[in-house]
Amino acid sequence: MTDDTVADWRTFSTPFALERAERDGDEVAVVWSDGRRTRHHRYWLRDNCACPQCFLALTREQVFEIVDAPADLAVAQVSAEAEGLKISWSDGHRSLYAPGWLRANANDAASRQERATARGKPFLWGREYADRLQNFTHADLMADDGALFAWLDALKTQGLTLVTGVPAEPEALLAPIARISHLRETNFGRVFDVKSKPQADSAAYTAVNLPPHTDLPTRELQPGVQFLHCLVNDATGGESVFVDGFAIGEAMRREQPQAFHTLTTVAMAFWNRDSRTDYRWSAPILALDPQGGLDEVRFANFLRGPVDAPESEMGEIYAALRLFQAMTRDARFSIERRMKPGDMWAFDNRRVLHARREFDPASGARHLQGAYVDRDEINSRWRVLKRELEAR
Amino acid sequence: MTDDTVADWRTFSTPFALERAERDGDEVAVVWSDGRRTRHHRYWLRDNCACPQCFLALTREQVFEIVDAPADLAVAQVSAEAEGLKISWSDGHRSLYAPGWLRANANDAASRQERATARGKPFLWGREYADRLQNFTHADLMADDGALFAWLDALKTQGLTLVTGVPAEPEALLAPIARISHLRETNFGRVFDVKSKPQADSAAYTAVNLPPHTDLPTRELQPGVQFLHCLVNDATGGESVFVDGFAIGEAMRREQPQAFHTLTTVAMAFWNRDSRTDYRWSAPILALDPQGGLDEVRFANFLRGPVDAPESEMGEIYAALRLFQAMTRDARFSIERRMKPGDMWAFDNRRVLHARREFDPASGARHLQGAYVDRDEINSRWRVLKRELEAR
Repeated sequence: MTDDTVADWRTFSTPFALERAERDGDEVAVVWSDGRRTRHHRYWLRDNCACPQCFLALTREQVFEIVDAPADLAVAQVSAEAEGLKISWSDGHRSLYAPGWLRANANDAASRQERATARGKPFLWGREYADRLQNFTHADLMADDGALFAWLDALKTQGLTLVTGVPAEPEALLAPIARISHLRETNFGRVFDVKSKPQADSAAYTAVNLPPHTDLPTRELQPGVQFLHCLVNDATGGESVFVDGFAIGEAMRREQPQAFHTLTTVAMAFWNRDSRTDYRWSAPILALDPQGGLDEVRFANFLRGPVDAPESEMGEIYAALRLFQAMTRDARFSIERRMKPGDMWAFDNRRVLHARREFDPASGARHLQGAYVDRDEINSRWRVLKRELEAR
Repeated sequence: MTDDTVADWRTFSTPFALERAERDGDEVAVVWSDGRRTRHHRYWLRDNCACPQCFLALTREQVFEIVDAPADLAVAQVSAEAEGLKISWSDGHRSLYAPGWLRANANDAASRQERATARGKPFLWGREYADRLQNFTHADLMADDGALFAWLDALKTQGLTLVTGVPAEPEALLAPIARISHLRETNFGRVFDVKSKPQADSAAYTAVNLPPHTDLPTRELQPGVQFLHCLVNDATGGESVFVDGFAIGEAMRREQPQAFHTLTTVAMAFWNRDSRTDYRWSAPILALDPQGGLDEVRFANFLRGPVDAPESEMGEIYAALRLFQAMTRDARFSIERRMKPGDMWAFDNRRVLHARREFDPASGARHLQGAYVDRDEINSRWRVLKRELEAR
């Protein structure tokens, strides 16, 4: 058995060898060649046995269920060998844990810290980023997996990218998106047309100024990445504005910690107004991940519902809300550009707020098409491309 | 202006009249004809002005942004009148708040408690529910909005429903789903076929026993409602089993509070194993809503990754996990049925765990089709049907 066990499609390697292993109560204590000491609970070890009896080789999925281990299951014999940690169990089962896998998944403080550090941090940007915006070409994305990976990586770290040279034809945005995955469909369709409509069911479909917002904060899961492709842009006005919500959030965390606390804890209501749908969701404007980093921004002023909170907190809530709105308008955080036919913005809709200046529909045609893909799909494609590119 | 303001598609009414209103510092203090006293912050009031200057009549969306209110905005004059609370602001703006709207959205403790109570509670079930399972017919759902509403209401409160008489033809499940909304597409397609496949990329596509699980715990947002339609079922075995995860959770909360605490706080890793996708998500097996009620169950043993937690917590985590698995197997919580062609299960995939007994693919054909719709779409359709049926 190599490090490429049936339990995972990834391969694990480590320069460090297992030096010693011994049973110590409910755990196995391991000493590595670099001196690291790791401990592994008997149930954790039994649960992660990757032998062909415990894992279905065809699907690489676990068939063993840990509830079926006897309550008094014990390690009968354990040894540290070159091929891995070998265990004979009190019920006769045998397990082998490859060193690379064991090291990558160990739960001592140092190993857990290594995993936490390996998670990338977002690159925060503001006005000065306008000149350094990552630019990708449609031709590269369609032909080259390396370019595709760089695009997804930029979406994950910077959250805003521009793709040029997408044919200015209806549904042309679907070709580069199909290189990633399927779409996130919404009640506005799989692909939505952004142009001024007489019977608009959303401010997006009018010509008015749209202040910085995320799309569909009215849903439990806001769409992850938004693609916005320009087919025609002959109208006066209508410039695109982008604001890094994570940069605002971090500035607020530093400069106005009380307001930051309010925005990360008080749920705000968002709902849509439509004769045929009635979407509602309440959640804080800023959401944190379990490590305390910014995970999500949720905001569209035109979709907010009445604040539902104890009256005694209202002054604080409105102070924080007004500050947040003011920061979304602050030029130091924003980038403004005019789209040309063939341009396609791709941005993390749960991080980057977008705005549109008012335009004059009488001055010329303006037609964009948009679509969404969720973060799960971006991350899945990113991981598969990463393991494929690394295997080359 | 009636209670049906431009700010909302719902109508609000109240049997109680505004008796007195006066400015008190940053707030307006209101006394109602039943003696209730409500207080309303100046910014909250200004934010909710529903006049045609503040709201775009076409889309019913707010164009006013509260950050544009002057810092020293004050109530110049306020009066309680039959048509509502009338305010003249220090900057000259005027607002009117209909009594029904104001009462429905007030933030005093009593009003907030009324809103909290109005949210329905789930109806928990176990084995005894097998005889009382809500049964709907395809014909009724296609023709009658009242039946459609009852179906969605049962999905929201009970989480498990059976629809009979769906034509046993490929994609026939799409017709009743189209009565609700669009689909939640996944990497398994818009509609997925459940049958034994030679190159299975998931245990679902084999003939093995599938223990109780939710679908796609590997995604940030697990699909909300799953539809599972039987086309052919001639194979021996393969019975459907359903378990109310909320009933298990509440029993655990009562009987084993320490395990309940562990399962609601410790993130468990889930990931898929596939050559073309790599989905991963970590979250607690039991998720609570902001009021402490059960909101979600996330569990599929065959998709779990190694537990990533401090080694010192491992004993407690595995005790809770083993207990949860044992409860999903406990006959008191589960319903078992054999599907007939034309039957369609619809169930809340974030509450109800489903299982499939092993079947013998050599004994006959077995073919189901499945699809997903998210909770947002269920809730939106439920709300629109409710306001339409109430308006009749």
